[in-house]
Amino acid sequence: MTNWATRGFVAVDWGSTARRAYAVDAGGRITDEMEDDAGTLTLARGDFPASVAALRERFGAAPLLMAGMVGSNRGWVEAPYVPCPATLPDLAQHLCWPDDTAAIVPGLSFHQGTQADVMRGEEVQVFGLDALEKRGGRTLICHPGTHAKWIELDEGRVQRFRTVMTGELFSLLKRHSILADLLAGPASVGPAFLDGVACGFESGALSADLFGVRAGVLLGARQREDAASRVSGLLIGCDIRTGLGWSDAADEIAVLGRGSLTELYAAALDHVGRRTRRVDGAAAFVAGMRAIAETIS
Amino acid sequence: MTNWATRGFVAVDWGSTARRAYAVDAGGRITDEMEDDAGTLTLARGDFPASVAALRERFGAAPLLMAGMVGSNRGWVEAPYVPCPATLPDLAQHLCWPDDTAAIVPGLSFHQGTQADVMRGEEVQVFGLDALEKRGGRTLICHPGTHAKWIELDEGRVQRFRTVMTGELFSLLKRHSILADLLAGPASVGPAFLDGVACGFESGALSADLFGVRAGVLLGARQREDAASRVSGLLIGCDIRTGLGWSDAADEIAVLGRGSLTELYAAALDHVGRRTRRVDGAAAFVAGMRAIAETIS
Repeated sequence: MTNWATRGFVAVDWGSTARRAYAVDAGGRITDEMEDDAGTLTLARGDFPASVAALRERFGAAPLLMAGMVGSNRGWVEAPYVPCPATLPDLAQHLCWPDDTAAIVPGLSFHQGTQADVMRGEEVQVFGLDALEKRGGRTLICHPGTHAKWIELDEGRVQRFRTVMTGELFSLLKRHSILADLLAGPASVGPAFLDGVACGFESGALSADLFGVRAGVLLGARQREDAASRVSGLLIGCDIRTGLGWSDAADEIAVLGRGSLTELYAAALDHVGRRTRRVDGAAAFVAGMRAIAETIS
Repeated sequence: MTNWATRGFVAVDWGSTARRAYAVDAGGRITDEMEDDAGTLTLARGDFPASVAALRERFGAAPLLMAGMVGSNRGWVEAPYVPCPATLPDLAQHLCWPDDTAAIVPGLSFHQGTQADVMRGEEVQVFGLDALEKRGGRTLICHPGTHAKWIELDEGRVQRFRTVMTGELFSLLKRHSILADLLAGPASVGPAFLDGVACGFESGALSADLFGVRAGVLLGARQREDAASRVSGLLIGCDIRTGLGWSDAADEIAVLGRGSLTELYAAALDHVGRRTRRVDGAAAFVAGMRAIAETIS
């Protein structure tokens, strides 16, 4: 009996600002990939059929398995959230089918008491991490990003998760705030970043600490060129405070992602004394999509 | 012996986005006032002489006593910060004189250990509150605004202060963030605001709680029309957590300001069980300027 995984398919990570697609062959190897900026925010609902047709032209006849904001209420077709706790089979049972050879993976929701949260796209990476690591047990996953996620995984089940708007806040501060002229440069791991992490982790007064960066530069107490790293450290330190205060799931944290932001989180967690392991986000995404593709015949 | 206060003068509160001017007669009464949007951010340095000339034409020959961002490094003439602890005579001794009939009140700075902070304009209101109330002793002042200030006043001396970027963050979220479409309406005191205050005051995880507002609406757990009030409550609750965690100066807090934002802070402080008294910001500004004018002959 064949399924999409054994026939080969195209895995599409279609977010709000970017789109990445991977041709996955019958052996699970990536044979082709592309990335462009055709994020869902750039498309009206009526634009999706043409955008998908272009993907099919690029990748040939293989079926499309898609995840991310493409399934949101501003995407191609809305795939309603699956509530936590949720497993990979739960996701696979609730695929949304725009047509016979295109399926959209739903996102996850969490709602308990006053806490409500949603994700779209990260859930595939989380189940992919589980498939790659085959550890079982409890894992606390930190997924850096525009909206960073802290996720509790227990025996293949996402129990709950929490989103922190860290990346978006940094972007707002950099583009539109009174701190903007201090944040033109890149943030990097170093004393200014790590001091910021320690302060953000301890103080719990982020909106005051952020203003203090500007005041410190004005008063000559801080170097202007350190400001971007310090602000990044404050935000990430506060993010980690939120994530670690919220969960006691593990001594060691799986940092799931790719690129410089993931480096910053790993360095910050190390600085506050937590052990981490790194899992590549793209590898986890493809592994998660392949595990879902195995359920589709 | 005459001084500016006994001769009459014009008090100018010249901020980054707006300018308010009050003609103050020899008896301390406001005989004329105006407000416009000629904030310092709208002016290049070379624009100030003409802008000041227009003020003089509007108010006649009385001398000008100015405070706020007009004395910043992007203002008319820079008036260097006076470091805390500082009294009203300290400010008066460091006036900056662009010409013979125009003086600029310097701002205050605070720098101790890793904390650095600055203010321009609020210091006049603080000393004005002191002049109006004549209470002496220790007072904790909450000054709502784009950059809210918490200020410790002790026997007429500003000991230290802390800025929280609450108003600016609300504005960034409303104009540019993923929450923007939820924040179009006004925030007002009511259950959604007060729930937000309690949550922001308790949780210390502002960037996560903010995202939770959007998730709550998406999941149908919260009303869309409550979102602006809830976000305002979260931000102000977190601000109060910062201010009260930072200072133990008083059981009762003087809320200094004017308008709806001041109402929200007073309601929030009441909701977390703190007594408040209200002091009108414009009255305090004029009283503070008059006390400084008395030192100028």
